[in-house]
Amino acid sequence: MTDQTSNKMWGGRFAAGPDAIMEAINASIGFDKRMAAQDIAGSRAHAAMLAATGIISDKDAQAIREGLLTILSEIEAGEFTFSTTLEDIHMNVEARLKEVIGEPAGRLHTGRSRNDQVATDFKLWVRDQLDAFEAGLLALIRALLGQAEAGADWVMPGFTHLQTAQPVTWGHHMMAYVEMFGRDLSRVRDARARMNESPLGAAALAGTSFPIDRDMTAQALGFDRPAANSLDAVSDRDFALEFLSCASICAMHLSRFAEELVIWSSAQFRFVALSDRFSTGSSIMPQKKNPDAAELIRAKVGRIFGANTALMMVMKGLPLAYSKDMQEDKEQVFDAADNLMLALAAMEGMVRDMTGNRDNLAAAAGSGFSTATDLADWLVRVLGLPFRDAHHITGSLVAMAEKQGCDLPDLTLEQMQSVHAEITNDVFGVLGVENSVNSRMSYGGTAPAQVRAQIARWKERLG
Amino acid sequence: MTDQTSNKMWGGRFAAGPDAIMEAINASIGFDKRMAAQDIAGSRAHAAMLAATGIISDKDAQAIREGLLTILSEIEAGEFTFSTTLEDIHMNVEARLKEVIGEPAGRLHTGRSRNDQVATDFKLWVRDQLDAFEAGLLALIRALLGQAEAGADWVMPGFTHLQTAQPVTWGHHMMAYVEMFGRDLSRVRDARARMNESPLGAAALAGTSFPIDRDMTAQALGFDRPAANSLDAVSDRDFALEFLSCASICAMHLSRFAEELVIWSSAQFRFVALSDRFSTGSSIMPQKKNPDAAELIRAKVGRIFGANTALMMVMKGLPLAYSKDMQEDKEQVFDAADNLMLALAAMEGMVRDMTGNRDNLAAAAGSGFSTATDLADWLVRVLGLPFRDAHHITGSLVAMAEKQGCDLPDLTLEQMQSVHAEITNDVFGVLGVENSVNSRMSYGGTAPAQVRAQIARWKERLG
Amino acid sequence: MTDQTSNKMWGGRFAAGPDAIMEAINASIGFDKRMAAQDIAGSRAHAAMLAATGIISDKDAQAIREGLLTILSEIEAGEFTFSTTLEDIHMNVEARLKEVIGEPAGRLHTGRSRNDQVATDFKLWVRDQLDAFEAGLLALIRALLGQAEAGADWVMPGFTHLQTAQPVTWGHHMMAYVEMFGRDLSRVRDARARMNESPLGAAALAGTSFPIDRDMTAQALGFDRPAANSLDAVSDRDFALEFLSCASICAMHLSRFAEELVIWSSAQFRFVALSDRFSTGSSIMPQKKNPDAAELIRAKVGRIFGANTALMMVMKGLPLAYSKDMQEDKEQVFDAADNLMLALAAMEGMVRDMTGNRDNLAAAAGSGFSTATDLADWLVRVLGLPFRDAHHITGSLVAMAEKQGCDLPDLTLEQMQSVHAEITNDVFGVLGVENSVNSRMSYGGTAPAQVRAQIARWKERLG
Amino acid sequence: MTDQTSNKMWGGRFAAGPDAIMEAINASIGFDKRMAAQDIAGSRAHAAMLAATGIISDKDAQAIREGLLTILSEIEAGEFTFSTTLEDIHMNVEARLKEVIGEPAGRLHTGRSRNDQVATDFKLWVRDQLDAFEAGLLALIRALLGQAEAGADWVMPGFTHLQTAQPVTWGHHMMAYVEMFGRDLSRVRDARARMNESPLGAAALAGTSFPIDRDMTAQALGFDRPAANSLDAVSDRDFALEFLSCASICAMHLSRFAEELVIWSSAQFRFVALSDRFSTGSSIMPQKKNPDAAELIRAKVGRIFGANTALMMVMKGLPLAYSKDMQEDKEQVFDAADNLMLALAAMEGMVRDMTGNRDNLAAAAGSGFSTATDLADWLVRVLGLPFRDAHHITGSLVAMAEKQGCDLPDLTLEQMQSVHAEITNDVFGVLGVENSVNSRMSYGGTAPAQVRAQIARWKERLG
Repeated sequence: MTDQTSNKMWGGRFAAGPDAIMEAINASIGFDKRMAAQDIAGSRAHAAMLAATGIISDKDAQAIREGLLTILSEIEAGEFTFSTTLEDIHMNVEARLKEVIGEPAGRLHTGRSRNDQVATDFKLWVRDQLDAFEAGLLALIRALLGQAEAGADWVMPGFTHLQTAQPVTWGHHMMAYVEMFGRDLSRVRDARARMNESPLGAAALAGTSFPIDRDMTAQALGFDRPAANSLDAVSDRDFALEFLSCASICAMHLSRFAEELVIWSSAQFRFVALSDRFSTGSSIMPQKKNPDAAELIRAKVGRIFGANTALMMVMKGLPLAYSKDMQEDKEQVFDAADNLMLALAAMEGMVRDMTGNRDNLAAAAGSGFSTATDLADWLVRVLGLPFRDAHHITGSLVAMAEKQGCDLPDLTLEQMQSVHAEITNDVFGVLGVENSVNSRMSYGGTAPAQVRAQIARWKERLG
Repeated sequence: MTDQTSNKMWGGRFAAGPDAIMEAINASIGFDKRMAAQDIAGSRAHAAMLAATGIISDKDAQAIREGLLTILSEIEAGEFTFSTTLEDIHMNVEARLKEVIGEPAGRLHTGRSRNDQVATDFKLWVRDQLDAFEAGLLALIRALLGQAEAGADWVMPGFTHLQTAQPVTWGHHMMAYVEMFGRDLSRVRDARARMNESPLGAAALAGTSFPIDRDMTAQALGFDRPAANSLDAVSDRDFALEFLSCASICAMHLSRFAEELVIWSSAQFRFVALSDRFSTGSSIMPQKKNPDAAELIRAKVGRIFGANTALMMVMKGLPLAYSKDMQEDKEQVFDAADNLMLALAAMEGMVRDMTGNRDNLAAAAGSGFSTATDLADWLVRVLGLPFRDAHHITGSLVAMAEKQGCDLPDLTLEQMQSVHAEITNDVFGVLGVENSVNSRMSYGGTAPAQVRAQIARWKERLG
Repeated sequence: MTDQTSNKMWGGRFAAGPDAIMEAINASIGFDKRMAAQDIAGSRAHAAMLAATGIISDKDAQAIREGLLTILSEIEAGEFTFSTTLEDIHMNVEARLKEVIGEPAGRLHTGRSRNDQVATDFKLWVRDQLDAFEAGLLALIRALLGQAEAGADWVMPGFTHLQTAQPVTWGHHMMAYVEMFGRDLSRVRDARARMNESPLGAAALAGTSFPIDRDMTAQALGFDRPAANSLDAVSDRDFALEFLSCASICAMHLSRFAEELVIWSSAQFRFVALSDRFSTGSSIMPQKKNPDAAELIRAKVGRIFGANTALMMVMKGLPLAYSKDMQEDKEQVFDAADNLMLALAAMEGMVRDMTGNRDNLAAAAGSGFSTATDLADWLVRVLGLPFRDAHHITGSLVAMAEKQGCDLPDLTLEQMQSVHAEITNDVFGVLGVENSVNSRMSYGGTAPAQVRAQIARWKERLG
Repeated sequence: MTDQTSNKMWGGRFAAGPDAIMEAINASIGFDKRMAAQDIAGSRAHAAMLAATGIISDKDAQAIREGLLTILSEIEAGEFTFSTTLEDIHMNVEARLKEVIGEPAGRLHTGRSRNDQVATDFKLWVRDQLDAFEAGLLALIRALLGQAEAGADWVMPGFTHLQTAQPVTWGHHMMAYVEMFGRDLSRVRDARARMNESPLGAAALAGTSFPIDRDMTAQALGFDRPAANSLDAVSDRDFALEFLSCASICAMHLSRFAEELVIWSSAQFRFVALSDRFSTGSSIMPQKKNPDAAELIRAKVGRIFGANTALMMVMKGLPLAYSKDMQEDKEQVFDAADNLMLALAAMEGMVRDMTGNRDNLAAAAGSGFSTATDLADWLVRVLGLPFRDAHHITGSLVAMAEKQGCDLPDLTLEQMQSVHAEITNDVFGVLGVENSVNSRMSYGGTAPAQVRAQIARWKERLG
């Protein structure tokens, strides 16, 4: 049933022709032509199945399948003229097919409808994007592993509240993002597995009385199985929403890293130098490098989650099965996908190109009494003090050092003992930044050995 | 200061050229060319001011102003070649100006920066949209007034919970939307007044040492005054967010009306017939009219509020003054504005064309004991019963009528008196649907006389 | 490191005391006390591990573990006094522990920090909600299967655009929602598996120098493994966002069904009668049943996706590791979880209680020439006409029937042959509504046999 | 008409009692009791009007009005027992009124309905919040003016992309926020004026046949006029959405300032010292001050815009007039209002208490060749070079200085002349940071004199 056929196409009954407003709001060809390849793949699979089940002749199927390939070539060559009057990609292709092969074209739409056709096309398109998403994540993870490996033992400040808390390693910081993008990877793979069911053959909404073989078309299109309920198959846009959810969370991760790169690039931090490729400059301040790419990446989470919001709101409260509201799904997903892939690629490039400033990182890591917790832990571990008492003593020592304008290792043993008599010379073994990071050997900790173990685990996992 | 100048343009220092990814993520010319007319208007005003204040010569200003007009003609004629390498509309125009008029082109950018230039262009663009928004609302309100006038006394069910509650009039229902779109109108006007301050002359962020006259450019561009703080002037995107907020609330109103039209068009309601112009049909069920335009309008609130979400998230936590993140503002506003104007126009057309089915409306209005509250109010008003007692008696009478399969006016006086002895024959005067609506004469009530008074008030207000 | 310790607690240095505003904005005890059980479970596991690894004595561990149980009892009995000055659940419990067991309480916090503690507590809380989510989905799916089984062969209209398109079965419609909630189930299980890594032992952000055993605490708390990067472990809120994403999509499904129930309950549709339990009435219109529960369920998607928006925006652009912004995570997730579980339970109850009106459904299914596509398919299948030609002929026959005020099966063979001469008496075999649905035997189609097969598949799957 | 009356209350017909789930999802008393004062004020105004118009007796009105005052006292004293069975604040008050004054209580609900009652209560509540919003903004603006005045001539870096662009003044930076919060103020006032129409007397949806005087109740409650359409009056939640929109934009401004305070508080920037009141510390690193309040304020935009999202989505597609979905409006607005007021107060306190580090600001302002644009502008202004040429020359001079490891003023005249021969000694007059900011005298520019003029304008405006 060609339920959404526009006035012009089904002709006859409506007295009034479609006017410009209706055409503008109703036609989707302006954007759904991006699904041309998916539409043709779906139709080719459908035609082959119709012949295999005896619903149409082999000869007609052959003509249809070859005609569709011709049209695909025309589209790829930029020689195809899309018509707004024909409203969408499906009718554009079908009308052209009639021109190319004549009467058999009219048999292609047997046992299907525009509703299952558009669901199939869109699913195939989204599935391609999930694959591109996975590839983008893998490339970015590899770039981060490269940075982590190079700086597995570089010390830098670990921040809470953007205040120095404890020293960590550059490699450890990079590996934190590997974990985040690794979860994104896992989400993308789950989403792909879940959505990989074929709507084709659901027809308008009720299935069909033709003896179609939905398993055959599912297999031909790389789906794991046909969708199990025809009403749901044409009403479902979960796959688009789950794509947008995964994309939003990933974009949030990107925004966090981008924020750090912007801050780290400031004259006040100078933790990192971004490459010329991913910065822009000023004609009169040539020393200046603006982290434009990082800022644009930071912004993408808004755009992508905005698309998520849009589609959630569109789908809210829609009765089954197909409503025209659902035509608003594609542009949101197209835009989000384009921007996500671009942001992943730009971040990967930035990560590959960037240079951590090891000296500045180390200097910052050592400031602010950043090894105070190491001292407290020593008091607990070696002297057996309760945790809270150890913290109190440490606080007094830090206050003493601050008052004297020196760092903790610069205090003398006598000064330390004036606060707590049992402190021994051993304490100096834990106070340096290098000692601190090396000591944090708990699983997942910042010690270079732990970082290297995690790098190795990830390399093995990626193969 | 040309702070966001890309690698290619400011040349020289960066070893590496911009690659495809950076160009893709960084260039805005793909969308900001929509602001070409605004950009040229802003530059022409700036050039005139530079001459008037003696900063450049009259001759140079004249050359610049004429050259810009030439470029505007080229753009309007579709003869202008936009270059992605030149990144944005500002550089595209400036580069072409140099080709057209030579050396004086280099003097145009005196005393301004790309930051105030883009803020000015975008404000002018948004201001145009606020004007279009107002026009669209006025047209829609007029269409609703037409419907209200035609059916000021048509009775129909007033729903709560999509259940018949009390009879109302068609005119009254239409006027409810007039109030909603009237508030939108008021919001749009407030927003326009608030945003009408000129950023031009804020320069990069700090103002300038050139003796510019910001009042002069503000006036030339129709602004009420120059913005009072240069840092704010280049950092502010409130005008875009307020446009999106107003657009979102209006789109929500449209979604409510669209929902009603979809429900009212169903075979089960048949309250309204949409015109052929704004419906689509089915090739095999020619009697069917799908309310596609209404469904698409219903969906637009998602898209528009999605844009609002996107820009809110982009702006969150951005330090002053300009950050490149803000380049993400335009596409959101462009898309929301396009879709809002389209939705307003489509709704106006649908309202003008639609036909209320007076008979079906009246039949539905009378069902479901819809005048039970009239009976209860009579018991209070005439017999002086407390409100809650009157409701209890009415409930018993409705239950009696329901049991007998008749409506309230079909009960005999004796039957009524068996429930409450003081009821008199007068009660039948309030039980009919027409009586009910005519009686609701409180200000803003559903009585046709009240509806007509409100129509008259609105007509006077609109002039 | 007790990084977020408030003024009052760490005492001493700050000249000014915390005032009311700071306490109001900073303290979390007002809401995080909901995680008391999780906090105590985490601390008990931590204490056991500290003893097992020799970091504290068995005796101290025993005292701590018993003291914590005492506190849990106090909290469960409502006898615990929460103090805002102690800011959060962690400090409230720890302070009370000191009162209960004295000095050993000070050893509990060894080798951990409030950052990993709060992450652990919150993950345990969210994990419980994922389990409740799963249980709620399973109960709802079972209720839907019950409805599907009862009405596997009841005919009703299948809608597109809220217009009758083709007849479907009640069972088929119910099973569409089973598929939707089935995908939700799958998403919830994936999310649970992904998030089930223990942050405990990540300490402030860098891990610790104590020889802790993170595998042991992970196992004790039912986690699959410890999180692999300590920076990520305290910065990660993906598990909360993924919960909110899953909840949002599920709530969208609920809103669609709720919308249908509201429409179906209207006087114009009367497709379904909701039970008294899940409706409310009117004191003066006792026949009226307002679908309040359905409307409230329809609204929940707003609230739940609002929480998703809130947390996405909070997390946007946060640098590593912990920032206080992240304290805003809990209330969003608490509110979304409460409302989701309530909506699932209310929907389950409504589905169990509701009664489809078989007569009204059947009458509506047969109206509107709903078997026109069956006729067209017959023309293709039996007469071998191309699909598009068959549709044209069917359109003419529908127009003829409409003109005569009859339905398709009421046309005579002669009338049919006047449009297409080859039509035979066989055609009448496909025109009835029952015939129509029985014929749609394609996999996933609306035929009762297909519906029953899907019910059986789901029952087996649920065990 | 008491349309939303729950099972328990209207009794009788429903066989089944409400169960726990329905009570949990349906009852609103848990939150709408916050509107008790508004509810009682509305009822008192209504009772007075009923007497004035002769609908009830003066004696009854007097009893009602006094009884309501008694109840208000009970509520304010915490002695009122709210009952979930009575579902909402309206029924709780009415039921108590019957206990207190007996029979006349039953006359209060004459000529109104719960629909207009709840709309009135909620509008009054929101109006109070708009007033609190205004007060909060005024206090914050005054605090900012104080900072601006103190540091009108302190130099600091003006950033774009978080890179030093040009020197600005501390006062100028503070005044940028004054402009932002000033626009918020303007928005709030517009919103208040627009929403100030009384729904009271709209009754269930259609108005009433009682001769009520809506102007009288409107005036008594401080409304400007009665709402003009009764259907709209009970369906409208624009006032709540506009409050949330205004609150969201304001919270975005707060998030920007909060981000700056977090960055400025870092060890790397040290631009500002927050007071102890609005920071928290660490027991072992007593020198550390975490900007907790700033971080929490930064997060609030998520929460507030999340509420906006929630209510927008709730309202999407709701048919007129009242639907139960709308009960979800209050908790969103309550939470957003509470958090907004808290964030404004915390920001005001932080601003009042904070101390700009004048030395660090000045040192940062002078680094990075921040007066390069001043040099370029001199070349244009004094030597008459085209803007673009001047920039090229400046770039060469900056590169020269960078190569020599000195700043621009450290270059000799000879060195400068080697790049452009016409440069004279005068150039050194524009190169210092102080010279730079003093020269930016364009309206709204960063020159201290301009800043002081803007402070004076604002002080006059605030009165």
